[in-house]
Amino acid sequence: MPQGQPTAVPQDGLTTRQRRNRPLVIVHTGDMKGKSTAAFGLALRGWNQGWNIGVFQFVKSAKWRVGEEGAFKALGRLHEQTGEGGPVEWHKMGEGWSWSRKKGSEDDHAAAAAEGWREIAARIADQRHGLYVLDEFTYPIHWGWVDVTEVVEVLTNRPGHQHVVITGRHAHPALIEAADLVMETAKVKHPMDAGQKGQRGIEW
Amino acid sequence: MPQGQPTAVPQDGLTTRQRRNRPLVIVHTGDMKGKSTAAFGLALRGWNQGWNIGVFQFVKSAKWRVGEEGAFKALGRLHEQTGEGGPVEWHKMGEGWSWSRKKGSEDDHAAAAAEGWREIAARIADQRHGLYVLDEFTYPIHWGWVDVTEVVEVLTNRPGHQHVVITGRHAHPALIEAADLVMETAKVKHPMDAGQKGQRGIEW
Repeated sequence: MPQGQPTAVPQDGLTTRQRRNRPLVIVHTGDMKGKSTAAFGLALRGWNQGWNIGVFQFVKSAKWRVGEEGAFKALGRLHEQTGEGGPVEWHKMGEGWSWSRKKGSEDDHAAAAAEGWREIAARIADQRHGLYVLDEFTYPIHWGWVDVTEVVEVLTNRPGHQHVVITGRHAHPALIEAADLVMETAKVKHPMDAGQKGQRGIEW
Repeated sequence: MPQGQPTAVPQDGLTTRQRRNRPLVIVHTGDMKGKSTAAFGLALRGWNQGWNIGVFQFVKSAKWRVGEEGAFKALGRLHEQTGEGGPVEWHKMGEGWSWSRKKGSEDDHAAAAAEGWREIAARIADQRHGLYVLDEFTYPIHWGWVDVTEVVEVLTNRPGHQHVVITGRHAHPALIEAADLVMETAKVKHPMDAGQKGQRGIEW
């Protein structure tokens, strides 16, 4: 809530305004859908603020999030044409990262994930984006393809004013510890329980 | 997941395709933020499918969701100009509903909420939208301003192919019973616990 009141005021030497505008590391985890969806909803608000949005999808299927991709690319074009909102970059691992020449890298997911993280760390050092969406990034960490200690170090020491949202199940405890905000989704009821498969516009 | 497998196949006389494309009633509830954000993320996918998106905000503050509103109105204009995606209508109770002449109605929230619901029921009968986002609609139901039995009846018997997403805390049990998909958000960690207030681009 915009007018929400903090439950405690910390002794960190910051003014309310400084504390308020501190950039955040956000984790959306849990077993139910809604984690990535909420991250893209958040990115909508960032776009509207004119932030430079960088999306990095650590997923295999090119079909994944094609709806959000279509809408965000449309918003990015709108920014280029009219100056409205902010620029949008959308990168996915599935087809090989767009900046990479090793198009065969999709055969080696561990190497591709590590390469994705190196690029993100370099962009964070360069302060390239106002908001990073690292979609499904918990998995390469969970599987040991990317070192969580390094991720936490880069996130904790990132310069300037860069927000980072990480989504996926099995968020590493060190990542949760490092995050400012952690949201967990839980399933109450799902149509697949009633024998209904996923459908266009709803699931992708 | 697009390739998710249902856990059971019901004896409902429908083919898999018919069952798959059945329109959904979705509820996002729970105590943590992310409910509305995930609903707007879902609406992004719907927009990309070319669906007619109708957003109805049952909230008081005009500041609420201003980021999503800006982005969706931009997508709506893009549709008008280029035909890309679908049309977008965004209505909010806070300033008095746009279709209403009773601009003083914000003094009587119960009456304004009931009026909003009547309009939505009429649009559902007319099959006006492909996706309805009824943001924070659980509250007027919770407070008894809108009759849950009538809501469930209208939703259950709605014609055609209309998806409905309802967000907010304290979702009525009858609403959860009627829904096809219910997602609950839970707080693991929030910056307000550490004395940080909400900030632009993140909270609104």
